[in-house]
Amino acid sequence: MLEVIRKLRRYASGSPSRDDPSLLVESCRSLLTERGESNSRALAASTIERYGELLPEGRFAFFRILADAFGPDPEEVVRCAQRYADDRSAENLIRLSQAAEPPRQELLRRLNRVPGGTATIVRMRELLLQCLRQDPALVAVDADFQHLLSSWFNPGFLRLEQVDWNSPAVLLEQIIQHEAVHEIDGWADLRRRLEPDRRCFAFFHPALPGEPLIFVEVALLDRMPDAIGPLLDRAVASVADPSGSKVAAFYSISNCQPGLRGINLGNFLIKQVAEHLQREFPRLRTFCTLSPVPGFAAWLARQPSIEAPGLRKPRQAALQQALQGLRDRHGATLAGLASVASVGGLGGSMAATDETDRSALQALCAHYLVQVSASDSPAADPVARFHLNNGARLQRINSGADLSRKGLRQSFGLMVNYQYDLDEIEANHERFMRGEVSASRAVLGLA
Amino acid sequence: MLEVIRKLRRYASGSPSRDDPSLLVESCRSLLTERGESNSRALAASTIERYGELLPEGRFAFFRILADAFGPDPEEVVRCAQRYADDRSAENLIRLSQAAEPPRQELLRRLNRVPGGTATIVRMRELLLQCLRQDPALVAVDADFQHLLSSWFNPGFLRLEQVDWNSPAVLLEQIIQHEAVHEIDGWADLRRRLEPDRRCFAFFHPALPGEPLIFVEVALLDRMPDAIGPLLDRAVASVADPSGSKVAAFYSISNCQPGLRGINLGNFLIKQVAEHLQREFPRLRTFCTLSPVPGFAAWLARQPSIEAPGLRKPRQAALQQALQGLRDRHGATLAGLASVASVGGLGGSMAATDETDRSALQALCAHYLVQVSASDSPAADPVARFHLNNGARLQRINSGADLSRKGLRQSFGLMVNYQYDLDEIEANHERFMRGEVSASRAVLGLA
Amino acid sequence: MLEVIRKLRRYASGSPSRDDPSLLVESCRSLLTERGESNSRALAASTIERYGELLPEGRFAFFRILADAFGPDPEEVVRCAQRYADDRSAENLIRLSQAAEPPRQELLRRLNRVPGGTATIVRMRELLLQCLRQDPALVAVDADFQHLLSSWFNPGFLRLEQVDWNSPAVLLEQIIQHEAVHEIDGWADLRRRLEPDRRCFAFFHPALPGEPLIFVEVALLDRMPDAIGPLLDRAVASVADPSGSKVAAFYSISNCQPGLRGINLGNFLIKQVAEHLQREFPRLRTFCTLSPVPGFAAWLARQPSIEAPGLRKPRQAALQQALQGLRDRHGATLAGLASVASVGGLGGSMAATDETDRSALQALCAHYLVQVSASDSPAADPVARFHLNNGARLQRINSGADLSRKGLRQSFGLMVNYQYDLDEIEANHERFMRGEVSASRAVLGLA
Amino acid sequence: MLEVIRKLRRYASGSPSRDDPSLLVESCRSLLTERGESNSRALAASTIERYGELLPEGRFAFFRILADAFGPDPEEVVRCAQRYADDRSAENLIRLSQAAEPPRQELLRRLNRVPGGTATIVRMRELLLQCLRQDPALVAVDADFQHLLSSWFNPGFLRLEQVDWNSPAVLLEQIIQHEAVHEIDGWADLRRRLEPDRRCFAFFHPALPGEPLIFVEVALLDRMPDAIGPLLDRAVASVADPSGSKVAAFYSISNCQPGLRGINLGNFLIKQVAEHLQREFPRLRTFCTLSPVPGFAAWLARQPSIEAPGLRKPRQAALQQALQGLRDRHGATLAGLASVASVGGLGGSMAATDETDRSALQALCAHYLVQVSASDSPAADPVARFHLNNGARLQRINSGADLSRKGLRQSFGLMVNYQYDLDEIEANHERFMRGEVSASRAVLGLA
Repeated sequence: MLEVIRKLRRYASGSPSRDDPSLLVESCRSLLTERGESNSRALAASTIERYGELLPEGRFAFFRILADAFGPDPEEVVRCAQRYADDRSAENLIRLSQAAEPPRQELLRRLNRVPGGTATIVRMRELLLQCLRQDPALVAVDADFQHLLSSWFNPGFLRLEQVDWNSPAVLLEQIIQHEAVHEIDGWADLRRRLEPDRRCFAFFHPALPGEPLIFVEVALLDRMPDAIGPLLDRAVASVADPSGSKVAAFYSISNCQPGLRGINLGNFLIKQVAEHLQREFPRLRTFCTLSPVPGFAAWLARQPSIEAPGLRKPRQAALQQALQGLRDRHGATLAGLASVASVGGLGGSMAATDETDRSALQALCAHYLVQVSASDSPAADPVARFHLNNGARLQRINSGADLSRKGLRQSFGLMVNYQYDLDEIEANHERFMRGEVSASRAVLGLA
Repeated sequence: MLEVIRKLRRYASGSPSRDDPSLLVESCRSLLTERGESNSRALAASTIERYGELLPEGRFAFFRILADAFGPDPEEVVRCAQRYADDRSAENLIRLSQAAEPPRQELLRRLNRVPGGTATIVRMRELLLQCLRQDPALVAVDADFQHLLSSWFNPGFLRLEQVDWNSPAVLLEQIIQHEAVHEIDGWADLRRRLEPDRRCFAFFHPALPGEPLIFVEVALLDRMPDAIGPLLDRAVASVADPSGSKVAAFYSISNCQPGLRGINLGNFLIKQVAEHLQREFPRLRTFCTLSPVPGFAAWLARQPSIEAPGLRKPRQAALQQALQGLRDRHGATLAGLASVASVGGLGGSMAATDETDRSALQALCAHYLVQVSASDSPAADPVARFHLNNGARLQRINSGADLSRKGLRQSFGLMVNYQYDLDEIEANHERFMRGEVSASRAVLGLA
Repeated sequence: MLEVIRKLRRYASGSPSRDDPSLLVESCRSLLTERGESNSRALAASTIERYGELLPEGRFAFFRILADAFGPDPEEVVRCAQRYADDRSAENLIRLSQAAEPPRQELLRRLNRVPGGTATIVRMRELLLQCLRQDPALVAVDADFQHLLSSWFNPGFLRLEQVDWNSPAVLLEQIIQHEAVHEIDGWADLRRRLEPDRRCFAFFHPALPGEPLIFVEVALLDRMPDAIGPLLDRAVASVADPSGSKVAAFYSISNCQPGLRGINLGNFLIKQVAEHLQREFPRLRTFCTLSPVPGFAAWLARQPSIEAPGLRKPRQAALQQALQGLRDRHGATLAGLASVASVGGLGGSMAATDETDRSALQALCAHYLVQVSASDSPAADPVARFHLNNGARLQRINSGADLSRKGLRQSFGLMVNYQYDLDEIEANHERFMRGEVSASRAVLGLA
Repeated sequence: MLEVIRKLRRYASGSPSRDDPSLLVESCRSLLTERGESNSRALAASTIERYGELLPEGRFAFFRILADAFGPDPEEVVRCAQRYADDRSAENLIRLSQAAEPPRQELLRRLNRVPGGTATIVRMRELLLQCLRQDPALVAVDADFQHLLSSWFNPGFLRLEQVDWNSPAVLLEQIIQHEAVHEIDGWADLRRRLEPDRRCFAFFHPALPGEPLIFVEVALLDRMPDAIGPLLDRAVASVADPSGSKVAAFYSISNCQPGLRGINLGNFLIKQVAEHLQREFPRLRTFCTLSPVPGFAAWLARQPSIEAPGLRKPRQAALQQALQGLRDRHGATLAGLASVASVGGLGGSMAATDETDRSALQALCAHYLVQVSASDSPAADPVARFHLNNGARLQRINSGADLSRKGLRQSFGLMVNYQYDLDEIEANHERFMRGEVSASRAVLGLA
């Protein structure tokens, strides 16, 4: 049994019949066969209610039934496809489209007709994604969920809103809870991130009022930041008037709805916020990030040696030597390097990393991001892939930039600035599609 | 060339190239092939702009290209369908779904990502529906438009809002303009329909702010109304406090967006308004309409004799006799009966219709609605089909109920009350699906 | 009996006792003697109710009682004043202030505590002002009303709001109704005044939600306007984008609350709107009015000859000659000049006024405004006094500017531009306080 | 020099001239002599700016000048008073009113005309009240401030708003900061007070947007509460649905604006909230408080013996004996009784107070509240005077009700329920005005 289900089960109670989705399936069928929709609203509401009464096991069983019994009829599809291939008439095409679309899509559209329907479907998918790990055959069901949610949560339907100290407490509480990159430690910590030289923006959907979908935190600065500490430090007072800022640094982006996984809202959010900030602060010249490199340390630890297609010999030798030096100094797994923190305290830890280590790490990280991240390899850095795919440029690698335990463990304290230049976005993205990474001269020099 | 296009063309100007959609098609292609979506917002915006610059001919040509070049690849669909029939794996199903879905659906979804995208697509379909009359092959393109719009404008995404004298003038102006059943003759006329004993509700979509999609007008009364005149009469003062009303009569329902044709919002609007009114006025007992019978006169004029499967002999004889009587008194086409108005003035006209005529008309109308309207016949009354399909019951036929020129011409002044009983809706609808009409004893007695 | 009361009475009904304010007076007394205010809200509410039940005569009688029995105690005031004169201690001053303030002020403050209290007091004063014509002794009561209303309706408490086609119909209806300078002829006429090159702003008070206090209409133009006709003409299309406008012309300002007479909101409204427009349209260079001269024709008709202290002989002779010429051509009362309109139609009428007439009228009007309007004379032009007192400059006199019947009758078609220059306002006002009128060289040349 | 001024001074800096209010006084004079108000808005703004630039000393000096030079002219007042005594004409009365009103009132009214004027005047008075302790002659100036603020902040102008978890964080932060009765220990503590079975309401004034004036916290309960601990305990979960509650207990009321001292908003707030709650929860039967007795311990410690006019002999003897018993057991100053807490821990402390102590304390507290609190004595309990003056009834005395350090020190842990019965309010208040306290039989039995 799934871990999540076991956990959920603890909170549920009731008779064994609550594991049995047969009543729910019956509701779904009548919701679908209801030809004239005369009462689909009431039917959809009671279907949702029946789903709500099921235990996690019942829901899992329901998803399987969606997979098995609410897909298209293969024979019918073949017939329609053949007929369309023979005669490409509009009627034949329409029939084919209808035959090929899994009926569960129409089921979801009908469930979506009631108030609260959208929220239910998003939560449903959240559980479905967890069940998927257990039963990969559910991937076709999930494809239908994602297909529809992607259509419904398209950026044209979303509302960009600034989150600040005037926002309702109930919203701010969600921001605290969902911040996934640099944890928010209570209300005072949050407040620092909402002061005049900071900005926070979130996307909302009209059908999920009061629930942020995704949010981004931005610092308005004079120069591109090279460390996260000062940005989060409550002791560093806000600039009273940020109107002269030249740099907008996106230092955190977090999703709030696990049920919307795979629906790329972040790309749109960053660009819309950049446009918004450019209008509010006409002197802004640079839009960049200060981003973690969550995949670096794990990748580095697993490399027997540095190799990459197209890497020139001398370069490869230099990188290999840098890696070997690190291993000589900090052990084969580099565990020593990452655990330095726990010995000397965060500040002191990096003092222990001498200049040689620093150079070695930067060169290896540049290599990792430029050579590995453009590939589909599971070792590729997800943050790098996200920004590079969005059309950003890999601008700078900063050592000693994140001295938190997590930062040292993930990337030996390294952080990266990705830069968004509106004129380059399309070209950068095209290049990334071809497997090339756009990077500054400085980074290319390192790699 | 289409009439509408000829007309639109007069307002457009510019070089002949504006008839040529090739640049637009190119934009569409790059919007679709853009794999990573890095810049789809900018691309979608410029695609919409190119569409906007085209003359009607260019748009018509564009729709044809959508039909020919943005549909699925038949061979590929057959292949995928066959593979899925052979092995019903999730992967095969996903591939089939992708292959069978016309790429123009994804094109529309991407256009929808920019602010104003939804509005453009709705206006696009408005023109497409007109082109469809000229070129029926566009029906497959229209099916895709309708499929997506139906998903985006589902009732769960709509906001029900009351329209009253506190509403913005810019909204009230649209109500005046779009009222399609009983024309609103200026602001004073509108005001009467917004006084305390009247209600008006509209559906709005978040992506079309300020634009009503459909609205309904309701009168709060003591009894079921049998004529439209008193309801609209500005000289009849409003009841100051309608809280004791027993009947809510829906006397007009109008669509505002021709581009949303075929997306059934009216059914949901009526039921949501009924729920809303029930909460506001707990003493309401009856929800009914006062509706025109637009198809009656035309149908009657064309009947050589009264025939219907399952009609018992004596009944048929009686109806036949009634029809013959009317023809004897008012001419074969019954033109005399409808044109009475123009002679004696509206009031006087019906005085001329004596009791015999009245009875004959009611019986024949009951027959028409009960026997003909459940069929798919083009002669079926569209208003009757709408309400019966929604699950309403045909409650009463009122003669002399609409003495306007239009009312006399369409239905010799007859109007109908359809009644919505929440408990019956589903059963009534089911019956209608089987070809039976739910009607009161009184009406059944007439038919 | 007052005309207004006779009129109001027709709408009231009931027993004769409703002329008797004694119960109301009793309520007022207990509201005042209620030392601890434990229940003043309930008492104030019932006092207002009792006032509402009175017929106009009863209210008139109540105002007299306010005058006679709710004033300060003279002996006590003398005592307190003497004591304060002998010993200027804080305590003595406080006691004096309390003794000298009429108790009806505290009564009004307590009435103001309930929701709707402010509205009642404003309506009360509206009637009081009418009663005042009948009984001048009520002026002391009115002074207390005005004193408090002026404190409560100070500009710091008012909200400036733009009125446009998005405003609620219920508000626009009030604008139509209260426009006092250039009548609004229905909704289409109003709409022209709310198009992109026009602006309308109103002041609102939080205690009178939805009720405008005063509003001003502005045209955004390229040059200072010299006639009202084109500004109001619905056939003259709006400029699509008024952002390049250089002139903001205030062409109408109207009060909506007769109960606030004498509380100078217009001065603040004009200046606040000017600031607002300057921010929205940075290219605006000139803020001026296009104003009527309502006192001119009446004054001119009554002048036996032109005389004014400090008028130089030759100037006087020239003006006298101009007046005589007009009388020779149009009769002693100049009635012919004003009634031209009714003969030749509005357009033709001024054609009949030849160049000689025009020059004569402009010179005499300049004299009237420069010499007479700074005086306290009842013949002084109220519009001129309003703008000059606000610190505006008399910039230009336009003949043939208002060809409406009212315009010809009041001022033989003349209209005036007053110009507001922020830098000059204070100096102009000071000068006006000393009896001097600030005017342009052109106008001074005419006078 | 005042303590507050010394403190404020530390935060200010600049040249000695900032102690000199002469420029400010000059501004005030020109604001007042400005007869026509042409530019009063600009003048008022610059006057406020000059005030803002002064150091505390300069402001103090300014208040003295307001007292000395902006009062009425005594000779003129005597003259006007005498003239009015001789001839009570309306004109004479108007002149008297004008002469007797200190010109600083008109000064404040003119300052109030600019945006932010009201806020400035409220802050001004906050400082003035502190200066008053130093220089009692400022009381006349303060009387004028209070007179105007009381007129401007009358309940009819205030907006009652519910404060809950949807309120802006910036507002909730002020609630945390201003809670004066039972300290709010951070956001989690606040949240408990905003859950479904709690309510918080505040008054707002339109000229101070976002700034609560006063707020009250209410618990919805099944019975009248006898201790504060359980009400504030975060571990006690909220009732999910409070709709069946029978008792609304006001357990905290706090002012947020020191500059509004003496303007009785609390009375109106309690009654308006009671009305509001009665509408929302029709089953509420009892509106009461759970209030501290801040004056009890101090009063008791200072009593040589129990005496009161009208106290019957046996009663007096019993009370005297109770007091003597307490002193025998806990020392002459009763210090032992109050400090028990610090020894045995809060819970244990009261265990140490045996039944005898408890009875003695209740009887003495009843005596204190019933006999002493109706007097003007400085020993009277301010909370009792507030509620009794509002018309509440002294319903119950609870021992061991507030075991916080403050509660034990102030009142040996006693708390009181005052009950608000709408029907009795007026009579209770009248009685209190005569020096009698309305109390329940139980309390009267104790006293």
